[in-house]
This record gives sequence, structure tokens and C-alpha cells, in this order.
Amino acid sequence: MANDNFIGWMTGIQQTMEDALARLLPNPESAPQRLHEAMRYSTLDGGKRVRPLLVHAAGELVSANPEHLARIGAAVEMIHAYSLVHDDMPCMDDDVLRRGKPTCHVAFDDATALLVGDALQTLAFDVLATPLDGVAAAAQLEMVRTLARASGHGGMAGGQAIDLASVGQTLSLPELEYMHCLKTGALIRAAVLLGALAGTPLSAEETERLDHFAKRIGLAFQVVDDVLDVDADTATLGKTAGKDAANDKPTYVSLMGLPEARAFARELRDEAFAALDGFGPAAQRLKDLADYIVARSF
Amino acid sequence: MANDNFIGWMTGIQQTMEDALARLLPNPESAPQRLHEAMRYSTLDGGKRVRPLLVHAAGELVSANPEHLARIGAAVEMIHAYSLVHDDMPCMDDDVLRRGKPTCHVAFDDATALLVGDALQTLAFDVLATPLDGVAAAAQLEMVRTLARASGHGGMAGGQAIDLASVGQTLSLPELEYMHCLKTGALIRAAVLLGALAGTPLSAEETERLDHFAKRIGLAFQVVDDVLDVDADTATLGKTAGKDAANDKPTYVSLMGLPEARAFARELRDEAFAALDGFGPAAQRLKDLADYIVARSF
Repeated sequence: MANDNFIGWMTGIQQTMEDALARLLPNPESAPQRLHEAMRYSTLDGGKRVRPLLVHAAGELVSANPEHLARIGAAVEMIHAYSLVHDDMPCMDDDVLRRGKPTCHVAFDDATALLVGDALQTLAFDVLATPLDGVAAAAQLEMVRTLARASGHGGMAGGQAIDLASVGQTLSLPELEYMHCLKTGALIRAAVLLGALAGTPLSAEETERLDHFAKRIGLAFQVVDDVLDVDADTATLGKTAGKDAANDKPTYVSLMGLPEARAFARELRDEAFAALDGFGPAAQRLKDLADYIVARSF
Repeated sequence: MANDNFIGWMTGIQQTMEDALARLLPNPESAPQRLHEAMRYSTLDGGKRVRPLLVHAAGELVSANPEHLARIGAAVEMIHAYSLVHDDMPCMDDDVLRRGKPTCHVAFDDATALLVGDALQTLAFDVLATPLDGVAAAAQLEMVRTLARASGHGGMAGGQAIDLASVGQTLSLPELEYMHCLKTGALIRAAVLLGALAGTPLSAEETERLDHFAKRIGLAFQVVDDVLDVDADTATLGKTAGKDAANDKPTYVSLMGLPEARAFARELRDEAFAALDGFGPAAQRLKDLADYIVARSF
């Protein structure tokens, strides 16, 4: 039963990630306590850990050490958590609910939320730059650069800036795709590439195919997110539903329609699958994950 | 004329840094333009570049490649610039003037300022993780980690959190020193250590002495900053003067008195000098810089 296996694998990785994050985040008893508590509040106990799951699935493809993958996954998840804390702030999306809990600036205060995001980003690079036994320093340096490129002005932060500028605007589908490619896709792609950097090096051609998989699945993830925003309730999502429409934000659903957006997500999954042809059974986890991401929208 | 030499050297490095930053910051013509413009606005044309000067002076001690030092200095300066942008925001110090110009959130808007700080931090790690010809990948990885540790929850961001919590509180001198050691000292110390990592490796004992220099000069820098806050006008500082007293923030001047704070700065400089004994003439730039930092308060 591939599916049972997958659920067991996923649950195991999610627990591993919770433990790794709990260990890597600063001690809530040591000063500055409020900052440390808020960093833990914003990172632990929440989320499906999709990015660390991708790190692990890609890492299995190259027989990487699972302990290394947990550290790398934690670094990527810290970047993701920092972006959520900052995006939820009053000067950005001004949201009060995230992962079923009050957002960081609501539970603490704006200044603390600002510092939480800043310090989580820094900790991600600290974790990623701490030497991993048996991994070449050059490969780790490449991981740091890959994560930085994915999250900075040419990636996640740049996508966020384009998103801000697009409120109330009419975007074409290619413009929407470009925005999401930066805002959400870049970090998802980085998760896959980082996992692959932790083991036996892939050939340039294999890396290219894996990269194609990562780009398709990153876009599928956002399309699914847009579908869920109109199609699920706040309790299921753990964040405010219907927000994009309320904020007059362009989405795949507003541009394509709901059935078309669902069909597009499936099409992207099939393209992602095709990119993995030739990797054999080692790529099964990546396929299972692609399926899991897209199935959320059915 | 050591002093003439020093001024010429300093001016040269400042120009080099301006050029390096202009080259490394994102193109203001490419999307997202507003973010890129705001990143350049907040980093170029301003500041004495004390941290990059320390990178270069420490790098000269180990015969490092000046082009490498410019990149490393740019990374440290980007971290410093990001911290200023976020510290000036309404939810933090709410300041309108920085380096003689309107602060980033005033010139642009709060959401852009948030993203500018985020993206400048990321770019710093991107720049530092880009391979430097002839520098071992392991040394560069150590640079990334040193910069991350200095700027995260156990360094600059942690110091900022303690500072926030200290407004209106009575701090003892050791508590004040601990706060500044994190908030300002850690990044200044990192600048010195990063420069030293770029050249011929120092012995453990030499690194320890250089580290002692860096810690003393980091503290002296903050004491001088406190002196200038009460002793200089806004036009000279390029930022709002008298702010600490207005915000009821504890400072070296409020705890020690003005003449005592000045004397303490000189004492720290002398201790910093003493730590460099044994390095010979190669340490002259570091001594000149220590003198320059402290002389600002006379």
C-alpha cells in the first residue's frame, strides 16, 4: 500500500521536523525570553511542513543522511515561518489568524513580530552554515546561496513586493504566474534543490529535470492555495478564508474559474511526474508528495 | 604622516564600498522596481561605513585580497543597513531621519520598509556565500556562520529585543553593557573576525587577541554613540539627536555622566590597543580606526 506507506513516512518526517525545530530554536528560558518564546510560538506546532517534506523526499533520491535533511528542512521552514510572521503584520496583510492560532503580532506585539521574523531568517542561515559531517563545505556554501537567492529580492521577498503592488490591479495569467513563481515557487524549488545537494551529486541533466519538477510543483502549490482560499472554510485552513477576494487580489480562481484552476493544478502535477521519469523508484516520495499537494484541492 | 595616510586610506575604502554596494544591490530598473529602489536608497550614499572599514583593516592584517574584503564589507554593511531600516519603523523607534535623509518607511511606505530590511538581510548572506577565488569554502562557511550568529537572536536582534524591554527600566552598568554587547558590539566584532577569515589563517592565540580588540572597540563605539546623542546636534549626526533621553532609554551618559562616559571610551580604546601588541605595523590600520571611532566623542 504505497499510500499507507506515504502517510506513515509523512507523519514520521513531521515529527522529526518538530523535534529538530524545537532543538534548533533558542531556549525559551534564556534572555531575551519574550523574543525566544515568540520565535518558538511562530514556528512550532503548526503547518504541514511541506517544504521540509520536499527536502527529505529529494534527499532520499540522493541517499542523503536523514539527520542532515532534518537540519536543512528546519532552515527552509524557518525562512517560511519568518515570511508568514512578517506577511501577517498590520503594514502587510494585517491578518489575525495563522495555523489556527492568533498571529505573532497579535499574541505578542508588532515590534516583537518584526524581530521574530528577522531573527528566524538569520537562524536559518546559521543552521545551514553549520558544518554537516561528510558534506563538502562547497556544497553547503551552495545550499546557503540557493536558499538566499530563493528568499531575497529575486525570490520570495520580490514576489511579495509584486503582490503588494498588484492589489486592485488587473494581472494577466503570465504576470500572475511570474509573481507566484517568486513569492511561493522559489522557496519550494529551493527545498527540492537543497535536499538534492545533501547527497550523492546529481548530473547536470538530472538536476535540470529535478528543477523542472520543483518549478511545476511550486506553481501547483499556489494554484491549490488559491482554490482552497475560495473553497474551504477558515477552521479547515487554520487561516482566514476568502481573503484574496476580500482584498481584491488576483488569483488563479479569479482569472481562470474554479474548475479550470483545479484542472490546471492536475496538469501541473502530471508535468511534474513526467520530469521524474528516469529516476526510477527512488523518486516515489517526490511523486507521492506532488499527489498529496494537488489532492488537497479536490 | 600616519594621520594623512589614514584619512586617504579611509576615503579610498569608503569609495570602494560605495562602488561595491552599488554593484551588488539589485538593479533599480528591473522589477520589482520600488523594492529595488528602496533597497538602494537605504544602503547607498550614507554612513561612515565603520564596519566595512574594520573588515578591510582586519583583512590587511592577514594580507587578504582587497576585492574579497569589499564583498565581505558589503555583506556586513547590508546587515547594518537592514537593522537601521527596521529599527526606524513606526512599531520600533519610529524615527523619520537617518543619515541626513528621510527614513525608508517615510520615503517609501511601511510595507516596503519591512521588505527592504528582509531582502537586505538575505542579500548579505547571498553575497557572503558566493565563492571567493582562493578562499577555502570552509572559511567562507565560517564567515556565514559568524555573521549569522552576530546578527540573530544571540546578537544584534537579541540586543534590540532587550533594548525594547529596557525602555523606562533602570538598568545596571553590567546590564547595559550586555545589551550593547549584543545590539551593536556583536556586528562590529563580526566585521573584524570576517576580515581576518579572508586571508592567511591566524593562530588561535592571535584570533583571541584580535577578538578582544573587537569586543573593546565594539563597546567603545556604543559609548561614543551615547555621548554624541547628547552632545551633537541633529544636523551633525544625520539622525535625531537627544532621542535616547527623550525615549527614557538608559545610556552610558545617563548612568555614568558625560565626562565619565568620555573617559570610559578612551579607556576601552587603550585596552583595544593593548590587545594588538605583538601584531606589529600590520595592525596600524586597526589602531587608527580605533582612534578615529573614539575621537568622534571629543
